[in-house]
Amino acid sequence: MSYTTIVKVRFGDIDHAGIAYYPNLYHYLHIAFEEFFEEFAGTPYPEVLDKEKVGFPTVKVETQFLKPIRYGDTLAVTLTVPRVGRSSVEILFTAVRRSDGACCIESRQTVVAVDMTSFLPIPIPSRFRDLFSRCTSPA
Amino acid sequence: MSYTTIVKVRFGDIDHAGIAYYPNLYHYLHIAFEEFFEEFAGTPYPEVLDKEKVGFPTVKVETQFLKPIRYGDTLAVTLTVPRVGRSSVEILFTAVRRSDGACCIESRQTVVAVDMTSFLPIPIPSRFRDLFSRCTSPA
Amino acid sequence: MSYTTIVKVRFGDIDHAGIAYYPNLYHYLHIAFEEFFEEFAGTPYPEVLDKEKVGFPTVKVETQFLKPIRYGDTLAVTLTVPRVGRSSVEILFTAVRRSDGACCIESRQTVVAVDMTSFLPIPIPSRFRDLFSRCTSPA
Amino acid sequence: MSYTTIVKVRFGDIDHAGIAYYPNLYHYLHIAFEEFFEEFAGTPYPEVLDKEKVGFPTVKVETQFLKPIRYGDTLAVTLTVPRVGRSSVEILFTAVRRSDGACCIESRQTVVAVDMTSFLPIPIPSRFRDLFSRCTSPA
Repeated sequence: MSYTTIVKVRFGDIDHAGIAYYPNLYHYLHIAFEEFFEEFAGTPYPEVLDKEKVGFPTVKVETQFLKPIRYGDTLAVTLTVPRVGRSSVEILFTAVRRSDGACCIESRQTVVAVDMTSFLPIPIPSRFRDLFSRCTSPA
Repeated sequence: MSYTTIVKVRFGDIDHAGIAYYPNLYHYLHIAFEEFFEEFAGTPYPEVLDKEKVGFPTVKVETQFLKPIRYGDTLAVTLTVPRVGRSSVEILFTAVRRSDGACCIESRQTVVAVDMTSFLPIPIPSRFRDLFSRCTSPA
Repeated sequence: MSYTTIVKVRFGDIDHAGIAYYPNLYHYLHIAFEEFFEEFAGTPYPEVLDKEKVGFPTVKVETQFLKPIRYGDTLAVTLTVPRVGRSSVEILFTAVRRSDGACCIESRQTVVAVDMTSFLPIPIPSRFRDLFSRCTSPA
Repeated sequence: MSYTTIVKVRFGDIDHAGIAYYPNLYHYLHIAFEEFFEEFAGTPYPEVLDKEKVGFPTVKVETQFLKPIRYGDTLAVTLTVPRVGRSSVEILFTAVRRSDGACCIESRQTVVAVDMTSFLPIPIPSRFRDLFSRCTSPA
C-alpha cells in the first residue's frame, strides 16, 4: 500500500535556469508527508505536533532528481515506507509527472520520532507505527 | 538617520517570468528588518523575540514595485521610521539596485509591538522606541 | 462575480514567531491568481506566459494583515477586480480562514499586462479584459 | 583546498517545529554554490548561466542533517569537490554552526554541466574543471 497526493508546480517555484528550484522540490515532498497524516492517518500534522507532541524531523536524505521539472507540471507524489525502526522511519518518496508519467524524483528519507517538548528521540507511538507499517510497499 | 543593509538576489528567488518573485522581495525587506536589530540596535532579533519576548508582526503594507529585479542584482535596502506610535511603528523600506542606482521598491509598513507570550499589542518598550526614533528621517 | 480558491497553510510557511511568515502570505495570493487563470479563465498561467507571451507582474500592493495565520489554518482566497484599466488591472484579494470565517488578509494589488518578450506594458488583450471584467464585484 | 561562506538563518526559514525547515537548508547550500562562483571562480553564477550558457543542475543528493538548526544560528558552509568527472562534479557541502563548532549538515551532491540552451549535458568547460579541481580536498 502507498499514499499519493497531487502537487502543482507554482510560478514562484522556478529558478533562474527555468526549472523548479531543487529546494522547492523538497517542499513538495514535505507537503505529501503532511497530507499523509491528514488524509491517510486521519490526524492533521498540526495536531500530531501540537496535541500529541510528536514530530518527525528529517535526518537523512538520498535523492535522485531524474528529470527537470517545469512550471505547468503537476506531480503525483507517492509515499511508501520501506522500513519502520524503533524511533526512525524510512520513507520513499517518488514524484511522477502527470502529463507523461515520467518519474522525476526518487527520495529516500529517514525521519525520527521526537518528543516536541524535549526534541529528543522517542519510540514511535504505536498508532503511527501501525500507520507507517500499512504503507510498506513490496518495492 | 537611517539603516542600510545589502541583499543579494539569489538563483532560487527568480520566478517563471525571469524576475524576482515579489513575495521574495518582502523576504529581502524582512532581512533588512532583522539586520537593523542586530547591527543598529545591537540586539539580534532572535534575542528580542526569545529573551525580551517582544515581536513586531507586520499588519499593514503599501508597496510600489518600481522596477523588475533580476538575478545578478544586489540591493541596498534602507529602513527609515516615519512615525513611532504607542504600539505601532511605521517603517519605510526602499531598495536601490547597486549597479545603476535605480530605486526598485518602496514599501511603507506598519508593525505592531506584541508580547510574544500572549501575541497581544503592548506599548513599544522604551529602548526600542528610542531606537526607532533615531531612524526618523526627514523624508 | 468573484473567484475563490482554497489554500492550506504549510508546515514550512511558519516563522520563528509561530505564525505564517508574511511573504508566504503573498505566495498564497499568487497561487489564487494562478488558479484564477486555470480554473476561471480556462488557460493555465504557464500557457498565458509561454504561448500567449503575456505576463501580469505586480507593481503596487496595499495590504492589511488583519489576523495572524497559523499552521492548521486553511484559507479561502477570493479574487475580485475593482478596476480594469488600459494596461493595468486592480485586483482585490481577501483571505478568509475557513474554521471561523475570520477575514485575515485584504490586499489590493495592481498588476500590469506586459509583453513577455520585451517586458514592456501592452494593452490588456481583449480576452483577458473580458475575464477580469467578469470579476468586477460590487464591493 | 576548499571554499567557505557564511550563511545566517533567517526568521522566515523556521518551521512549525521551531527549527530551520530542511528545504531551506538546501537553499543555504545553494547560496554557498553561488558564492563559490562569484568569490572563488571570479565569475558570478548569473554570468556563468547567461553569458557562458552553462548551468549545473543538481541530479543527486545524499545528506545527513546531524543537528537541528535554529533561528539565531549562523553557519559556515564549506564546499569541497571529491570528484570531477567528464560532465558531472561531486560536491561535498558541510555546514558548521559558528557558535559551537557543531557540524549540522553534510551533503554530497552531484551536479551536471548542461548547455543552458538545450539543457543537455556537456563536458565541463576546462576553466570550470580547473576551478573545481582546485577544491579537491584530501578528505
